[in-house]
Amino acid sequence: MSAETPSIEYPYQVMFFDTDCAAVVHNLAYLRIIETARTMLAEQLGFDMPTMAVKGVYPVLLRTEVDYRRPAKLSDHLLVRGRLASIERVRFWMEFEVLNKDASVVFVSCRQSLALIQMPDAKPLRLPEDWQTRFAHLRN
Amino acid sequence: MSAETPSIEYPYQVMFFDTDCAAVVHNLAYLRIIETARTMLAEQLGFDMPTMAVKGVYPVLLRTEVDYRRPAKLSDHLLVRGRLASIERVRFWMEFEVLNKDASVVFVSCRQSLALIQMPDAKPLRLPEDWQTRFAHLRN
Amino acid sequence: MSAETPSIEYPYQVMFFDTDCAAVVHNLAYLRIIETARTMLAEQLGFDMPTMAVKGVYPVLLRTEVDYRRPAKLSDHLLVRGRLASIERVRFWMEFEVLNKDASVVFVSCRQSLALIQMPDAKPLRLPEDWQTRFAHLRN
Amino acid sequence: MSAETPSIEYPYQVMFFDTDCAAVVHNLAYLRIIETARTMLAEQLGFDMPTMAVKGVYPVLLRTEVDYRRPAKLSDHLLVRGRLASIERVRFWMEFEVLNKDASVVFVSCRQSLALIQMPDAKPLRLPEDWQTRFAHLRN
Repeated sequence: MSAETPSIEYPYQVMFFDTDCAAVVHNLAYLRIIETARTMLAEQLGFDMPTMAVKGVYPVLLRTEVDYRRPAKLSDHLLVRGRLASIERVRFWMEFEVLNKDASVVFVSCRQSLALIQMPDAKPLRLPEDWQTRFAHLRN
Repeated sequence: MSAETPSIEYPYQVMFFDTDCAAVVHNLAYLRIIETARTMLAEQLGFDMPTMAVKGVYPVLLRTEVDYRRPAKLSDHLLVRGRLASIERVRFWMEFEVLNKDASVVFVSCRQSLALIQMPDAKPLRLPEDWQTRFAHLRN
Repeated sequence: MSAETPSIEYPYQVMFFDTDCAAVVHNLAYLRIIETARTMLAEQLGFDMPTMAVKGVYPVLLRTEVDYRRPAKLSDHLLVRGRLASIERVRFWMEFEVLNKDASVVFVSCRQSLALIQMPDAKPLRLPEDWQTRFAHLRN
Repeated sequence: MSAETPSIEYPYQVMFFDTDCAAVVHNLAYLRIIETARTMLAEQLGFDMPTMAVKGVYPVLLRTEVDYRRPAKLSDHLLVRGRLASIERVRFWMEFEVLNKDASVVFVSCRQSLALIQMPDAKPLRLPEDWQTRFAHLRN
């Protein structure tokens, strides 16, 4: 059995509200676009809203690292890719890329670390036991 | 005693994130800028956070009408003005203008209607009794 | 031949960044969501980026009227509908609704008027001649 | 003569549009708030709009690293601090903190690297000669 690496991909077309007067996509817009990918990837990991509401366990963002490599422009058709990159005891990392349509140009690359908290106290949790086996190839 | 009309005014300098690739302030940015004015005006009407949290009464936005008259640009120093414009039984209206620094050019004008709700049920309330006298000159 | 009314429809799922601490979709987020619909509708009317760049003719937003009817929430699956509503000599109106998935609940309704400008002077233009015949049923 | 370290500080009150339905400030909002600090700091370094427009030299964001330490909430009075942290040949780093009013709690800390480009070609430039002496204590 080959190792499973949760990953997602979605297309996005640049809107006026994504750009700024330097005629390129604004740095904040990329992170909003990436947040949609992060939400999709979280759903794949079992953090869909109904489940989160029942269990009271939510992922929270700890850190973002983002590199702005090349500027995307209005109406560009982007490809947004995300994947689970590594797991620790408490934290896990997701990696994202914002690419052009055929994935030949990287506009932005990004890593984000998250942790799980138990609401309503926001108590940090260890990652689920089964992740250590399911994602053994991603242990850091 | 002359009639009181709650009003506020604050300066704002246009940032990159307010603009789009047409090199002007984006239509959504004006409404964010106006929302700061609305919050300040609401505070003046007694809807500051501590009071709202104690009473459980919050203003909610019902309608926005906004006219985009002239384009503001990056680094423009704007003047944002807001005032209580009229009151009804349940709704009240605020009016806003986004102007240049010396108030000689109107970039955007806006009216917004709001109502008060009692949380946690979101039950609509009639406006406070004393508003009918304090703001008698604004009754519609 | 029946009259053609340009219209579009797209699904949208509410993200964290669309919500505010009142636990509902923030008023500004609806207008960003509607802007995507407006862009799609503009493309259908011939205002796609390549054509706009060649002709130098761009639609500009003149006015927005938006009614906030019911609150949408995190993870709600929304349906966004837009259509060309009416044309005048210089202005035209688009109408939008943000609905729940099966279109049985209206969260927000919105009308926006636009005009066409010739760049780089931003000179206002009359609407294209053929619109008066194509959209005769929408003349105001 | 003691070494000069450009730095700025500004107060900011959390608005509804800064929060999300987890009842805390949304991760993207901090970066918008920091961008205002970055703009103020850039002005202090000589990158005000009139000068940039004349010289055609603009700072561009290369990388952001941001740590989300504690959650700020609606109506919190924040203190935003920024300073020039280090300079290289082509890149320079700014550091920011978003704090509570009396600077006793750190909500978010952030580092951003930038470079200077000559428009309209977006040609990367070496940092100004005089920075190597003025900011000798920040050389990396």
